[in-house]
Amino acid sequence: MSDIKVIEREELKEKPQGPIGFGQLFTDYMFTMDYNKEEGWHNAVIMPYQNIEISPAAQVLHYGQAVFEGMKAYRQGDDIILFRPDENFKRMNKSNARLNIPEVDGEFLLDALQQLVRLEQDWIPSGQGESLYIRPFVIATEPYLGVHAATEYKFMIILSPVGAYYGDDQLMATRIYVEDEYVRAVRGGVGFAKVAGNYAASLAAQTRASELGYHQVLWLDGVEQRYIEEVGSMNIFFVINGKVVTPELNGSILPGITRKSILQLAEYLGYEVEERRIAIEEILSSEYVSEIFGTGTAAVISPVGSIRYKDQEVVINDGVTGPVTQRLYDEYTAIQEGKKEDPFNWCLKIK
Amino acid sequence: MSDIKVIEREELKEKPQGPIGFGQLFTDYMFTMDYNKEEGWHNAVIMPYQNIEISPAAQVLHYGQAVFEGMKAYRQGDDIILFRPDENFKRMNKSNARLNIPEVDGEFLLDALQQLVRLEQDWIPSGQGESLYIRPFVIATEPYLGVHAATEYKFMIILSPVGAYYGDDQLMATRIYVEDEYVRAVRGGVGFAKVAGNYAASLAAQTRASELGYHQVLWLDGVEQRYIEEVGSMNIFFVINGKVVTPELNGSILPGITRKSILQLAEYLGYEVEERRIAIEEILSSEYVSEIFGTGTAAVISPVGSIRYKDQEVVINDGVTGPVTQRLYDEYTAIQEGKKEDPFNWCLKIK
Ligand SMILES: Cc1ncc(COP(=O)(O)O)c(C=O)c1O
Ligand SMILES: Cc1ncc(COP(=O)(O)O)c(C=O)c1O
Repeated sequence: MSDIKVIEREELKEKPQGPIGFGQLFTDYMFTMDYNKEEGWHNAVIMPYQNIEISPAAQVLHYGQAVFEGMKAYRQGDDIILFRPDENFKRMNKSNARLNIPEVDGEFLLDALQQLVRLEQDWIPSGQGESLYIRPFVIATEPYLGVHAATEYKFMIILSPVGAYYGDDQLMATRIYVEDEYVRAVRGGVGFAKVAGNYAASLAAQTRASELGYHQVLWLDGVEQRYIEEVGSMNIFFVINGKVVTPELNGSILPGITRKSILQLAEYLGYEVEERRIAIEEILSSEYVSEIFGTGTAAVISPVGSIRYKDQEVVINDGVTGPVTQRLYDEYTAIQEGKKEDPFNWCLKIK
Repeated sequence: MSDIKVIEREELKEKPQGPIGFGQLFTDYMFTMDYNKEEGWHNAVIMPYQNIEISPAAQVLHYGQAVFEGMKAYRQGDDIILFRPDENFKRMNKSNARLNIPEVDGEFLLDALQQLVRLEQDWIPSGQGESLYIRPFVIATEPYLGVHAATEYKFMIILSPVGAYYGDDQLMATRIYVEDEYVRAVRGGVGFAKVAGNYAASLAAQTRASELGYHQVLWLDGVEQRYIEEVGSMNIFFVINGKVVTPELNGSILPGITRKSILQLAEYLGYEVEERRIAIEEILSSEYVSEIFGTGTAAVISPVGSIRYKDQEVVINDGVTGPVTQRLYDEYTAIQEGKKEDPFNWCLKIK
């Protein structure tokens, strides 16, 4: 493992006291590297967290050529672990490929990330549901107004200590609004990739759902507006006749790493699991859907208490967390927090 | 009209000699203004063209919350005109609304733009097909990793002198590749808005088409992948039985200002015009499509010489510019260049 150049800062920031929130607080250092045609990815450096300088003609500002990832570091007693970070760099390269962004070297970045997190270990909070959120991202920096795959990029990793997504009540059952007008993604598009534009396109629906008193939007497929895809920034699961069911990956759904892990864990725990197409009517009409929950790095596992589609509102499991959701949550977070053995080798110990 | 504060630069740049190209060269000054919740849009200033400073957590870099516009200033002898700039600011506000970006004041910006272009008038080239390309855009600058409509933005206008889009041969007939796998936009999405993410999503198809020897991609609708939508950064027109026909606006097509103007001009010149759904088979099978051309601010009018769909390649009008295309091009550019009277009041004289 080669050491990455570090530019030190003169003074460290104050660490936060009290509740941390999500994504507004950043640590002392960040990792950056640049790309151009001649040198490829180069100039890797860990430097003080600071504003960057960018041309007003940089392609990312006009054409949204940008991808990102999200993962977490946890404290396990005196140890620090990264949760499945190799999966994130693999997915980043799939996003890169879709947007014609040059591939990054996942192994090199995994080294760089470990060095960065070790340097910043005092920023990893240790409270219930707390962790260090890690945001790697790539932006097109070439100053050129023609629409083309840029020839210059910047890759960065920034770090943000985060609390539980929904504050104290991690397992608060959420209210979900099924979007029947706006569409997030369609096959042939970029829905399967973690690209910037997907999120801008989702804002109007999320804003409307919030105004109506719902926590999240449930997206339907773009072609028929009938098959369930995913929630804001989570994949979605249903407990149907005791079976753990989730929409199959179809090109417009983001292949969540939590989704993949929960499928593995559920099977390991003895549940039958299934990935298939799920029509919205099936969920609304059937008595046999006993639980619904979302999965994602930020919120981990988030139970769904009710779901609204057009004029119909369906309450799930009396609006409280069901037993399968609870069990998966307990087992999953126990692995992340080092309280149970990790049979899948998900946790990469870095200290 | 209130004057906007100007910060002067010490030295002006060299003006270009010889062919100018597109979108790589920027003038001496730019316009910027900022938005926050307390002050709304404020801090309007014309300043030296320069890099901007931005937080690595700025929402535009992660979630693509960004919109832009493209328009042109032309020399007409000693005069300088802007071509339908009010339409661009109107469209920008439609894009803003779709991405939950606060509205901009079109009238104020029109004043600001005039002041900026007057200051930069020596940058407007006067050769055949040359003009000053004007790029207004808005980016979300709030440093926050939660996915939400940002609370801070920057609006900017940058200017770039440009040559004819396809170099010397403005009316070179282009070869078009009909994309049957990738999808650009779908109803319910953001296709009708000029938002950054649409362009990143289009790169893979454009790259493949280029590799296969085609100039541009022709997009089909996202639901059935059957109805013609538009080309890379142009709307598309067909001459069918002498009639000028273009796809109707359906929520996934960008409502081009050139498209709107050409519909008006064609009608004025006595052509029958029609906006309707056009299936790809209709174009491929019929002998009655005599001409095809694209329309857009950058390329103005661009004849299509051949069109490929799956394994079929159809040559249009023997691969050369047809008479209707030529006539519309001549009349349209004559209005822009002040060589003919402007019966529609499209040209806003600013000097
Ligand atoms: C659109 C979308 N779906 C699903 C997920 C869940 O993916 P993961 O479990 O890898 O965090 C995310 C967030 O990361 C997302 O942005
Ligand atoms: C996707 C797309 N379609 C069509 C157009 C043409 O629009 P206008 O005539 O306003 O330039 C543009 C470019 O501006 C565009 O980006």
